[in-house]
Amino acid sequence: MTIKLYCFGESGHSYKAALALQFSGLDWEPVKVDFFNGETRSPEYRANVNEMGEAPVLIDGDVKLTQSGVIQQYIADKTGKLGGTDMEKYEVLRWVLWDNHKLSSVAGMTRFLMNFLPEDKQPKEAIAMFQGRLKAAYDVLDKHMMGREWIVGDSLTNADLTCCGYLYYPEPFGFDRADWPNIDAWLTRLSEQPGWKHPYDLMPGNPSDRA
Amino acid sequence: MTIKLYCFGESGHSYKAALALQFSGLDWEPVKVDFFNGETRSPEYRANVNEMGEAPVLIDGDVKLTQSGVIQQYIADKTGKLGGTDMEKYEVLRWVLWDNHKLSSVAGMTRFLMNFLPEDKQPKEAIAMFQGRLKAAYDVLDKHMMGREWIVGDSLTNADLTCCGYLYYPEPFGFDRADWPNIDAWLTRLSEQPGWKHPYDLMPGNPSDRA
Repeated sequence: MTIKLYCFGESGHSYKAALALQFSGLDWEPVKVDFFNGETRSPEYRANVNEMGEAPVLIDGDVKLTQSGVIQQYIADKTGKLGGTDMEKYEVLRWVLWDNHKLSSVAGMTRFLMNFLPEDKQPKEAIAMFQGRLKAAYDVLDKHMMGREWIVGDSLTNADLTCCGYLYYPEPFGFDRADWPNIDAWLTRLSEQPGWKHPYDLMPGNPSDRA
Repeated sequence: MTIKLYCFGESGHSYKAALALQFSGLDWEPVKVDFFNGETRSPEYRANVNEMGEAPVLIDGDVKLTQSGVIQQYIADKTGKLGGTDMEKYEVLRWVLWDNHKLSSVAGMTRFLMNFLPEDKQPKEAIAMFQGRLKAAYDVLDKHMMGREWIVGDSLTNADLTCCGYLYYPEPFGFDRADWPNIDAWLTRLSEQPGWKHPYDLMPGNPSDRA
């Protein structure tokens, strides 16, 4: 049975789950969530799909899972891929949590505020604060990647797939790959893996739909 | 060998790990991190304790773990407690991730900005925005707790211990238990469990040290 992933192209959190499915070799297909017309915030979506009002959501037969990090863990458990080995599982989870707390969450919010809100509704003070916090996060990741190919151990894991969530998008939010050479090299390496796709190619929906 | 937890009283993220140790029955002791004098941001701390510059950090013999959610998972794996059963493990992880993304991260930041920064340095616009986002998070949790005793399944799990991280602190950040009756009842229930302690009683350091 084909796994379904409720997602949309602009969502870096969805992208983390979609990339894990893509690299796992599982049979899956995306189901577009119409975030920009309020679908995730509707009472029907909360009642029937996700009480947290968020994407992504994975449906695998009777199993329904939300939160990208949970979906990544499920894929690792199901396929034996992307989860790291032995004690590496804690190190993978560590980066998944750090990313959800310090990197993707803040990057996603900042990109939304700067690109998907009208200019006069953008909270400039908050955006500046988020960009400062993001810079500290990029610095942690860039230092960590010095001399490494992958975030945890010697192979691609969900740690890589969580941290890259928002870093391939073209819309500006204060991240310039050229400023962070180790992150830049790692993003290139990841994008050269067989099966990799850009978020707008891997999932349905992108800003040009609304242009 | 006694487990050591690097932590400090004002840190709700530390509290999540400390409470899990407390309820697990493991032998542990806190090691005070001097956050307010910059210890977590020092080069020594990043080099020797945690490259992410954060607390808590757990040391159990040769094992060193950071991120409260990782420490909680390790305690569950080690003791068979607090992790839920079977498929519940995904549901526990779901709330751990949601909390780190939407609840404790934002509550911790808002409480810091409102209470531990001088009045004239407080970013009012950002604080208002965070309080709006927190209200949406309280609403998700309060609705979820309607008719339930615990967040996942029929017993206390790490899902409860993550979401309560910042909710017992006395410093104002826009959370009033009286506004959220299901959260209020759950916090009372949790605080009545044998071994429960308030963060300022469970860990070293509190605002009166700096008064």
